[in-house]
Amino acid sequence: MAMTTTSKKQIKFGFDFTSVPDLVACIQQLNNWGYSYACIPLVHAKLKPDATTLDRSALVSRADVILQAETWNRVVVKLSEHLNLDLADSSARDRDAELFRQEVSYASYLNVFAIMFQLPLNGCMPNLARLVNVALHENMFINFYVRVPMTCGGRGDNNGICDSDDNSSGTTDTWKLWSAFSAACDYHRSVCLALELSVDLPDQQELDRWLGEPIKAVIAPTSIFLTNKAGFPVLSRPHQMFINKLFDLDACIFISGEPNQNVKPYFEYLSFIHDSNKSDKLYSYSYGYEDLLQVPLQPLINDLDNNVYAVFEQDPIKYQQYEKAITKALTDKVKSGSTEVLTVCVVGAGRGPLVNASLNAADKSKVAVKVYAIEKNENALHVLNYNNENYWHNLVTVVGADMRTWEFEEKCDILVSELLGSFGDNELSPECLDGAQKLLKKDGVCIPSSYTSYLSPLQSQTLFSNMKMFKSNTPMEYLHENAEQIYVVNMRNMYIISPAQPLFTFNHPRSDLERNNNRYTTLTFDIQQDCILHGFAGYFQCSLIQGYKY
Amino acid sequence: MAMTTTSKKQIKFGFDFTSVPDLVACIQQLNNWGYSYACIPLVHAKLKPDATTLDRSALVSRADVILQAETWNRVVVKLSEHLNLDLADSSARDRDAELFRQEVSYASYLNVFAIMFQLPLNGCMPNLARLVNVALHENMFINFYVRVPMTCGGRGDNNGICDSDDNSSGTTDTWKLWSAFSAACDYHRSVCLALELSVDLPDQQELDRWLGEPIKAVIAPTSIFLTNKAGFPVLSRPHQMFINKLFDLDACIFISGEPNQNVKPYFEYLSFIHDSNKSDKLYSYSYGYEDLLQVPLQPLINDLDNNVYAVFEQDPIKYQQYEKAITKALTDKVKSGSTEVLTVCVVGAGRGPLVNASLNAADKSKVAVKVYAIEKNENALHVLNYNNENYWHNLVTVVGADMRTWEFEEKCDILVSELLGSFGDNELSPECLDGAQKLLKKDGVCIPSSYTSYLSPLQSQTLFSNMKMFKSNTPMEYLHENAEQIYVVNMRNMYIISPAQPLFTFNHPRSDLERNNNRYTTLTFDIQQDCILHGFAGYFQCSLIQGYKY
Repeated sequence: MAMTTTSKKQIKFGFDFTSVPDLVACIQQLNNWGYSYACIPLVHAKLKPDATTLDRSALVSRADVILQAETWNRVVVKLSEHLNLDLADSSARDRDAELFRQEVSYASYLNVFAIMFQLPLNGCMPNLARLVNVALHENMFINFYVRVPMTCGGRGDNNGICDSDDNSSGTTDTWKLWSAFSAACDYHRSVCLALELSVDLPDQQELDRWLGEPIKAVIAPTSIFLTNKAGFPVLSRPHQMFINKLFDLDACIFISGEPNQNVKPYFEYLSFIHDSNKSDKLYSYSYGYEDLLQVPLQPLINDLDNNVYAVFEQDPIKYQQYEKAITKALTDKVKSGSTEVLTVCVVGAGRGPLVNASLNAADKSKVAVKVYAIEKNENALHVLNYNNENYWHNLVTVVGADMRTWEFEEKCDILVSELLGSFGDNELSPECLDGAQKLLKKDGVCIPSSYTSYLSPLQSQTLFSNMKMFKSNTPMEYLHENAEQIYVVNMRNMYIISPAQPLFTFNHPRSDLERNNNRYTTLTFDIQQDCILHGFAGYFQCSLIQGYKY
Repeated sequence: MAMTTTSKKQIKFGFDFTSVPDLVACIQQLNNWGYSYACIPLVHAKLKPDATTLDRSALVSRADVILQAETWNRVVVKLSEHLNLDLADSSARDRDAELFRQEVSYASYLNVFAIMFQLPLNGCMPNLARLVNVALHENMFINFYVRVPMTCGGRGDNNGICDSDDNSSGTTDTWKLWSAFSAACDYHRSVCLALELSVDLPDQQELDRWLGEPIKAVIAPTSIFLTNKAGFPVLSRPHQMFINKLFDLDACIFISGEPNQNVKPYFEYLSFIHDSNKSDKLYSYSYGYEDLLQVPLQPLINDLDNNVYAVFEQDPIKYQQYEKAITKALTDKVKSGSTEVLTVCVVGAGRGPLVNASLNAADKSKVAVKVYAIEKNENALHVLNYNNENYWHNLVTVVGADMRTWEFEEKCDILVSELLGSFGDNELSPECLDGAQKLLKKDGVCIPSSYTSYLSPLQSQTLFSNMKMFKSNTPMEYLHENAEQIYVVNMRNMYIISPAQPLFTFNHPRSDLERNNNRYTTLTFDIQQDCILHGFAGYFQCSLIQGYKY
């Protein structure tokens, strides 16, 4: 158990305090529970909830100033709930706007972790959004957590100046409210979602749609927990599954309940769920790279370096599959009557992992082979030569050449390559293999034999804003057309709007070499609910050798 | 001893191998010695020094490819010494240029820590500089260490096409050669200096001038060490003093000697020198901020936050000095016949450190005072009110106002402020205090009473290139006129060309309030040797109260 948990991220846990008469005592209690984050009202409890005084000293929870700066960095402050910034009455509205400004300014001064407020469920929020935008402009390093319940039974009271669409079912689609607010803040990176879980969960599609939003905090009221036979709090299976997805988003989980309640068992239960979740085996491998955009490699134009080869060669599955495919190709050749030494060309050999796979396949199938390793990267050639001398008994012919221009009279029986990027054709595999096809005998086998790219529509505010902010690795150079660029990314904070569909297929070898590799097609997706299309997620499937499935 | 060393940086130690028949064994030896960094020839020893083959496989030290990528990150490779890129013979020059390109490309492929080459001491280097510039353009993440001896007895052989100025003394000023080369590379951040220490050190001014260069590596030949009575290697006192300055630059120190020599004692001796160097008490306080440019605060236009106040209040000396000055002012007033309660106005009170100092001074001098704290930052006012209630027994009058516009009939006896930035007047202290002067009685005392800024010319390639690359903290905003901006910086890698001279003095209170605070003056510095003026270093001296020195 300990072994599996070490590779996982720590969960950020916190408690949502409804009232804080003594801040120091409250932080102490939090530390005792083992939580790191406190969510507290910014204004001291002794002020009545309807207090509207503009006297600035009223802002301070009396003990605040004796907290260390580091402690404030772990505090989320809640703005006064009675503030209504979209009132029809202009003098009341202006007063609340001034109180809002004061509270945000003080929170910014304190360098709190985040500033939380509730999204008005009546949909009255244009002035609120405007004031948030002003605050973001005036206070550079603040983050807003917009608290939104996952579901809402009624429409909320509407004492403001706004109209919202009448909803005959009597429920409010809180995702739409959040989405409208987020748009009014121009999807600012510092306007994040604090999602409040509800006892009744919506259907799976609606649940998943939340996962495309920038959820930085989750409020889990103690009321959503059940009690098991032993008297301990547990979650229903659907709640468990959803909260596990929220753990993956690295959101801070706030338990919300009475401060005098014993909430330690809730914390322990959530930790237990988190530790039991072994769904994602690749988790530790990709740790820290979630939702980080990277420009795809261009190995044809840029030579790869040592580190990149080393990372690629760590793939635990790929080279086994190649070895099986080459073994099958060799065996098939022998079965079909070939008695000569078979020739294998590895094109784009890099440091030689497919050369290894070819030699292993020859060993296992007991077929005599002659292996050529063709590589254009002069630096990788040093390694190929070294490996040839030390591990391959000089049985491999290492060729420093571009596979598209190398002349090879003899022709090969099997052409092996791994030129596929992350989207099948995005590293110019079709073009390179078209050029290398002349190396292959008429009845030769190409490994891979075909690949197909797939595409699905995607909702992800996080990926969208990362794209907008993207700067290339190149110092002082910026991509101006970020949205026209493809990215390699380990996607996490996103919602697949509709299942992927096949896009383009390429086969090797092919008889119509005169045809270029340009493609154009139209896909139609069936979308079941309102959502926001931020982009497309792509991947590919590859068939290494025809008529053989792994 | 252990206590004092913990706050210090680790030194980066390495060994400079002249020949590496077996790289794995060499790294193992390095680990045994406890060094982290290896400096090795890129090309394998079995190639003769004059080998000029273009066969690429000749490049590889045979065991190279079996080193881990992490190990390569701790290796500095030396390019072949026989390369001469500024030969008159064009075919030989072109061949060497191709070998240079191949070696740099392979080093880049390996992701080595740095690529080292010797600067030709005959001054023939325009083509070398050009090829370095091309390599920097083609290989994004490489660093060049240019190896330069601190002094050079002769002019070196001149078999190239270049002419260098005849130097009648028969010695070469290697700093000038380095400086010319650095300029030819447009002071690129990735072209750094590897300084080779010599047995005979030049004079102090020349020694100090090296400290303005971007020294990333230091080569310490075993020949510069003396042997003490116990038979252990030691350095002369001047060598000790200079190497201590190099430690502060965070350069990697390479011992250079025979590989079969026992070099552990050299390492131990240098560690001992490093640990004994207690010259800089502020070292751990400013750790990590050396040579980091920051835009000065503008507290008049931007309100400070919690963290900034907290950092300022940690100053161990300043508030003691203020307390002494206020004590003297109070005592002087009583001595000169005052019998009334004295009024102290702290203008720009922040969270109250000068209020504390005032109350402490009143206690110590047993003089009755009435203290006003004037502050324009509404958020700091919360803290002042809190402190007043909890620590100051509500004896302080907290005023939320701008000192320049606040109306105060009563007038004060002592006006206390700390508006000085890092250069005396750069946070608008003169202008603010001119505005606040009306709060002061005719015979009132202003603390501080005067301050003078000082300026000295500075050579620092590191600060200069940091300035060129500077981006403000503000996201997406860049300062286009970086060179016209002043910066706050903990300077480290620099050379003060000439001692500082006083620049501008401001006195408070002053009788000529109608005169503005614009200043213009000319300073003349006496410069003893050639150097490069990159900018000016500034600081200030302040007299808190007239006729009293601390």
